[in-house]
Amino acid sequence: MAQKGSVEDFLAMAVDAAKKAGEIIRFGFYETKHVEHKGQVDLVTETDKKCEEIIFNFLKLHYPDHKFIGEETTAAFGTTELTDEPTWIVDPLDGTTNFVHGFPFVCVSIGLTIARIPTVGVVYNPIMDELFTAIRGKGAFLNGKPIKASSQNELVKSLLATEVGTKRDKATVDATTNKINSLLFKVRSLRMSGSCALSLCGIACGRLDLFYELGFGGPWDVAAGAVIASEAGGVVFDPSGSDFDITSQRVAASNPLLKDAFIEALQQSE
Amino acid sequence: MAQKGSVEDFLAMAVDAAKKAGEIIRFGFYETKHVEHKGQVDLVTETDKKCEEIIFNFLKLHYPDHKFIGEETTAAFGTTELTDEPTWIVDPLDGTTNFVHGFPFVCVSIGLTIARIPTVGVVYNPIMDELFTAIRGKGAFLNGKPIKASSQNELVKSLLATEVGTKRDKATVDATTNKINSLLFKVRSLRMSGSCALSLCGIACGRLDLFYELGFGGPWDVAAGAVIASEAGGVVFDPSGSDFDITSQRVAASNPLLKDAFIEALQQSE
Repeated sequence: MAQKGSVEDFLAMAVDAAKKAGEIIRFGFYETKHVEHKGQVDLVTETDKKCEEIIFNFLKLHYPDHKFIGEETTAAFGTTELTDEPTWIVDPLDGTTNFVHGFPFVCVSIGLTIARIPTVGVVYNPIMDELFTAIRGKGAFLNGKPIKASSQNELVKSLLATEVGTKRDKATVDATTNKINSLLFKVRSLRMSGSCALSLCGIACGRLDLFYELGFGGPWDVAAGAVIASEAGGVVFDPSGSDFDITSQRVAASNPLLKDAFIEALQQSE
Repeated sequence: MAQKGSVEDFLAMAVDAAKKAGEIIRFGFYETKHVEHKGQVDLVTETDKKCEEIIFNFLKLHYPDHKFIGEETTAAFGTTELTDEPTWIVDPLDGTTNFVHGFPFVCVSIGLTIARIPTVGVVYNPIMDELFTAIRGKGAFLNGKPIKASSQNELVKSLLATEVGTKRDKATVDATTNKINSLLFKVRSLRMSGSCALSLCGIACGRLDLFYELGFGGPWDVAAGAVIASEAGGVVFDPSGSDFDITSQRVAASNPLLKDAFIEALQQSE
């Protein structure tokens, strides 16, 4: 067993918490088909809350001095500031629209920052039973096996992922589709799977070559995935090309060979 | 065992053929990560050809009088005309880009038309081990369990799927993103998974509410999925609202409650 308070211990506990929440999600996922539409929204909220409670209670029990940031908590108590202290940043159910529709890209995302640096990441898709894990400096894994980002070096052969977000005002939608239009001339194809955390894991295991998303919910969508992508040999950065800021609600990721060309393509798509 | 020459017999044989091809795909899927990029294209072609050969040889052995239409066959011998005779229409590997990248939406698609009417459909995703089957008039199934299209009746709560296709001329790309732009104001969100056959199955099991695709490869992309979606209580039609034509390289699908609103939204997106 990992020494209490070591990063290995943090990871092991985060995996335990993710698996516990995963059971709740798996149950709800198959249940959504049996409730009326009016009840589906309640089922999401209920599952989301129950999962966050399980994860936070479990981690607080083991690490009473750690800080916690979560989607539900933030909604209830206002923005929690990220400090230098060990901070668990949790999305108990990433891909809520997928959850409602039974589209299999849903996950639990648990990240730990230490001195504001993403240090431990766990992303668990309970439907496909895929567990992505990473500790800063120690590699990334899918169900225990090492993973690495793709070795693609040509934009034109690259598979890009992004999302259309939830804002539907004209300026946002136009910006979204103009960007996609510009990028389509440069890449092989485009995927939208509906989970930011799983797309970062897609970069980590080479299923995707390029990913960007603007205006997602908060740091809980990227805290875990960013460690996993980086530890798999990927690079995570701001779509403008500057350093990645976990609190900025903007993210881009690729392998290092594609980074410069991807940033150029993103800039030209403005 | 089903009586030789019955539709149940046709389905059973198609499932056997899909499972055999699925083994080849599964092997190649995990192999792509271990070959150089130059070799990946060869691996796709090889897998594609090997699967088509297995499926066609197997079905020809059992039904020597039936006709056959496939992507590879068509590429080699020119367009094969669809006649009234029982005709197997096969995509041995739908989602080739996903296959190369290791993105788990790949499948075998085997459809049978009788008197030009899609009558038997088998779509098998060997990575997620999901087998969709249907016989005209006898319901649709996922791994043996009955499935049905969603009961969503509001466009604004609907999950839409489409693809960006492979053509990258300005007119096509602009038309593609303009359409997406227009539709985004009306639906909840958008998914792109890279497999036409699996998106039709997504409609069939209610994971997706709306799907359209223009300019895909050929009838092999839709022959099986169209039976499956219809038998699950979905509707398959031309994006213009007119009747679905399996040879037209245009398809739309939804549940019956959303059809009219979806056609209107598609027309307004022209």
